[in-house]
Amino acid sequence: MEIKVLQNILEANDQAAAENRSLLATAGVTALNLISAPGAGKTSLLEKTIPLLRERFSLAVLEGDIATTRDAQRIGALEVPVIQLLTNGGCHLEAALVARGLAELPLETLDLVFIENVGNIACPAEFDLGEDAKVGILSVAEGHDKPAKYPLLFHEVSALLLNKMDLLEHTDFDMETFVKDFRGLNPHAPLIEVSCRTGQGIEGLVDWVAGAIERHRQGTGAAL
Amino acid sequence: MEIKVLQNILEANDQAAAENRSLLATAGVTALNLISAPGAGKTSLLEKTIPLLRERFSLAVLEGDIATTRDAQRIGALEVPVIQLLTNGGCHLEAALVARGLAELPLETLDLVFIENVGNIACPAEFDLGEDAKVGILSVAEGHDKPAKYPLLFHEVSALLLNKMDLLEHTDFDMETFVKDFRGLNPHAPLIEVSCRTGQGIEGLVDWVAGAIERHRQGTGAAL
Repeated sequence: MEIKVLQNILEANDQAAAENRSLLATAGVTALNLISAPGAGKTSLLEKTIPLLRERFSLAVLEGDIATTRDAQRIGALEVPVIQLLTNGGCHLEAALVARGLAELPLETLDLVFIENVGNIACPAEFDLGEDAKVGILSVAEGHDKPAKYPLLFHEVSALLLNKMDLLEHTDFDMETFVKDFRGLNPHAPLIEVSCRTGQGIEGLVDWVAGAIERHRQGTGAAL
Repeated sequence: MEIKVLQNILEANDQAAAENRSLLATAGVTALNLISAPGAGKTSLLEKTIPLLRERFSLAVLEGDIATTRDAQRIGALEVPVIQLLTNGGCHLEAALVARGLAELPLETLDLVFIENVGNIACPAEFDLGEDAKVGILSVAEGHDKPAKYPLLFHEVSALLLNKMDLLEHTDFDMETFVKDFRGLNPHAPLIEVSCRTGQGIEGLVDWVAGAIERHRQGTGAAL
C-alpha cells in the first residue's frame, strides 16, 4: 500500500520535472540542484561563488527551505534574483514547487539557476526537479562513511564538493576510505575539495559551473 | 491528493507507535529515539555512553539506516544486543519497522532501548515510534541556524546534545543566537554540550539517561 502511494507521487513529480526541463532548455538556462545535509555549506558556497560567476553569467537562485527566509535573505544580499521555496515541513523540493519558482524568474535573460534543496541527503536525491545536474556537498565534519550509508545521492551527483577542508585536520575523516566508497558508486563525477573559510577550491568550482553552462549551450548536457 | 495520502500513512504509523509504547510500558523498558543529521555523531555518542550505561542497566540498540550494517557492527562490538533496521531508501524510521525490531529483543530483561534513527532532521521528527523521548543531536559544525530552519525537531526533543564541542573554536557557530532560537522553540529540554573526542559532557549525558529510566519506572514519563 505504502509503496503504491510513493509511486503515484513520483510519477506526478516526473511529469512536472519533464516540463521544467523543457522550459529551461527552450530558454537556454542551465539548472543545478544543490543537495547536502543541513549545515554542509550550500548557502555559504553560493555566497562565495556567486560574486565570481556574476561577472560572466546572468544567474538566479531558487532557495528551498522547510521554514524561514534566512537563506534567501543571505542570497538576496548578493543582488541576484532569489525566490524562496518553502516546503512548510516537507523534507525535499518537488518539481511542482520549482515550476512555480521558475515562473517568477526572467528566464529569457538568465544563463544559470541554482536550486538549493532542503538540507537532507536522503529524500531530495529521489526527486527529479528538471535540473541539468545534481551537485552534492559533503562536509568533512560529517564523516567519511556517508557515501556508503546514503548511496543514492552519491550515485546521482554530477559533481561532489567536499567542503570544510579547513576542518580536515581536526577530524577523523579517512580520505582513502571516502574516495574508495564514493568511486565505487560514481566513477567519473569530479570531486572538488573546497573551503568557504580559506577559499580553497572556489575557483575550481566556478570553472566546473562555467563548463556545465557551456555544455548545456552545446546541447551535450551539463552532467559530465 | 498528496496531503490526504500523508495523513493515511501517519494514522497507520500512530497506531503502530501506540502498540510499541504499550509493549515497552508492560516490559518496563525506556526507549529513546536519537535523531540528528548525517554525521552529527549518533553512533559515536552511543559508543562513548554504552560502556558506562552497561554497568548500571541492561540495554539494547535498534540501529536504523538506509543502507549498510556498518553502524550495527560498531554497536555490536560493544557486546550489547543490536538489531539493524534497514529502510532501503526510506528517509526515516516508521513504527511498524521498530515493532519488528522490538520483537527480536529480550524486552523482559532490558531497562533501555536506544533507537538510532536515519540521519535526517526533517522527516524523523514527524514519526512517533512509541519512544519515551526524542533526543536530538546537533554538531557545532552544522551551524547555529539549524533550530530556526528545522523547527519541528528542536520543538519535539526532550533533550538536545550539542556535539563536537572540540570543533567549536574552529567554526563560526554563534552560541548566543543558537540558544535563543532553541529556547524559543523549546524552553525546558536540557541542552547538554558534548564531545566524543575529548569526553566533554559524556557523564552528564549518562546521568540524563539514567534519570529518564528512573522517571519511566516511576510512571512519570521519561520526557522531562
